[in-house]
Amino acid sequence: MLSPQAQAFENALRALSDNVIEGEPTLEDQREAAAAFGAMTAEPAGVTYTETEIAGRRAQWIEPEGAATDRVLLYVHGGGYVLCSLETHAKLVGHLCKAIGCRGLNFDYRLAPEHPHPAAVEDSTAAYRALLDMGIEPGHIAIAGDSAGGGLTVATLLKLRDEGDPMPAAGVPLSPWADLEGLGESMTSNAASDLLVQQEGLKGMSDMFLNGQDARDPLAAPLYASYEGLAPMYIQVGGAETLLDDSTRVAARAARAGVEVRLDVFPGMQHVFQMAAGNVPEADDAVARIGDWLRPKLGL
Amino acid sequence: MLSPQAQAFENALRALSDNVIEGEPTLEDQREAAAAFGAMTAEPAGVTYTETEIAGRRAQWIEPEGAATDRVLLYVHGGGYVLCSLETHAKLVGHLCKAIGCRGLNFDYRLAPEHPHPAAVEDSTAAYRALLDMGIEPGHIAIAGDSAGGGLTVATLLKLRDEGDPMPAAGVPLSPWADLEGLGESMTSNAASDLLVQQEGLKGMSDMFLNGQDARDPLAAPLYASYEGLAPMYIQVGGAETLLDDSTRVAARAARAGVEVRLDVFPGMQHVFQMAAGNVPEADDAVARIGDWLRPKLGL
Repeated sequence: MLSPQAQAFENALRALSDNVIEGEPTLEDQREAAAAFGAMTAEPAGVTYTETEIAGRRAQWIEPEGAATDRVLLYVHGGGYVLCSLETHAKLVGHLCKAIGCRGLNFDYRLAPEHPHPAAVEDSTAAYRALLDMGIEPGHIAIAGDSAGGGLTVATLLKLRDEGDPMPAAGVPLSPWADLEGLGESMTSNAASDLLVQQEGLKGMSDMFLNGQDARDPLAAPLYASYEGLAPMYIQVGGAETLLDDSTRVAARAARAGVEVRLDVFPGMQHVFQMAAGNVPEADDAVARIGDWLRPKLGL
Repeated sequence: MLSPQAQAFENALRALSDNVIEGEPTLEDQREAAAAFGAMTAEPAGVTYTETEIAGRRAQWIEPEGAATDRVLLYVHGGGYVLCSLETHAKLVGHLCKAIGCRGLNFDYRLAPEHPHPAAVEDSTAAYRALLDMGIEPGHIAIAGDSAGGGLTVATLLKLRDEGDPMPAAGVPLSPWADLEGLGESMTSNAASDLLVQQEGLKGMSDMFLNGQDARDPLAAPLYASYEGLAPMYIQVGGAETLLDDSTRVAARAARAGVEVRLDVFPGMQHVFQMAAGNVPEADDAVARIGDWLRPKLGL
């Protein structure tokens, strides 16, 4: 049974979906409408946001009062690799960092179609390396992201492993998009319950992101990677999502490769419902669980 | 990296495996050797064990000091539906109940080959109903079990749902055996790392358990069930297990049916490593996580 607040969140998502998905909007229209996604998150109290530049890109330090400044959550937002921004996700990062007790680095990787794959994963990897260059220990960094940013979280771990960089303490993919072709059974079985993500919309985004490249390149579609040697992973996903099977399949693959994995499925919840943090108890519960799981991993 | 204690546990498992699996032992030999499995659990301090009879079967009340007596963990032990007993698993139930802060009911369901399917699930369902008859609220009961008992945990939830009984608060399958044919990829990919469970041994046990019945009967092989309406489920499994994919597939099916699911994969750990509770930190960590997850579900 969803909370009344979660039901109100669903209504807001329906309105957003009408603006972003229906009526064949232009990309510019979609980008403007996506700002409403950010409006679903309550302002977390006691958090300071400071603009900065990391690895040649815009970024934002997000610092809750009393947070450990030598522990960092590197965050890569969702939006199908084409939408959203630091602004849409800043408050969510604030909630996460409050729950963890660390600093956040909200990072503006390059978006498609202007910058197709592998721009995003090159940028996120560079941001992680920039944190190491600042003297932050790898074991004091976690990488997190939602939707495309959840896939990018996994892809970043893969690229770091492949190129011999030290692993961070953990990865936290929220509703990750890991299968660019939408082959999961939930893509159809949850088509009626998912208010945001449908096969057709994903196809448009993956076309822009791939720009003709292989839809099974493991750094673009991390479902197809081998996960040996990756950092521990905590995946959260809503039970109502078309992308549900991306999470269960990533968890299964990671487990088979000997990776520490936790998967939490929140029944009835929508894609990246954590965006409702501060407004919806299920989102606050999810954020709290991430804090509880990550603190010991970061030595907090 | 396994703890030194977990490595010592592996050595004990190798010795057990030599006795239970190698050299074509008789069923009687195997049942005797399985007692050594119980010897791997440390005695939990401050726990009282009281023999009783429930639903016409032997059972054991397991009561940690200060535990809530109106909250009950109904436990169904593992052993491939043919081995083990109240005695092998009593201490593990003690550790779990201490972590939860509730009473345990360690329940002696009928074993194959003397009593093939559906004897076990009929007994476990009757035990649950006996708890309700004693005035325990369904929302104050959790059902847990390991290996075959993990499959039986799920099968019990299915039978209760199918027959219109109220759901308990939760189910906690540990390394559940849910696919009696061993069709998971991990059955081969983890064949070298699993010290206890191999395809051939499972075949012998499922033959005794099924006694010619359908290997995909959902109450015998709950992988093949529809999970709609089941209680929240928390699955733990070791990353080294041949049965790893039983857990990931049960989690995926439950998630797709809208069930609240948590899956924790413990990298490198063996089948039902929780049996080393009190001796191995990974087992204690797993037991503590079950306590943390179950307490609020039981209203504790």
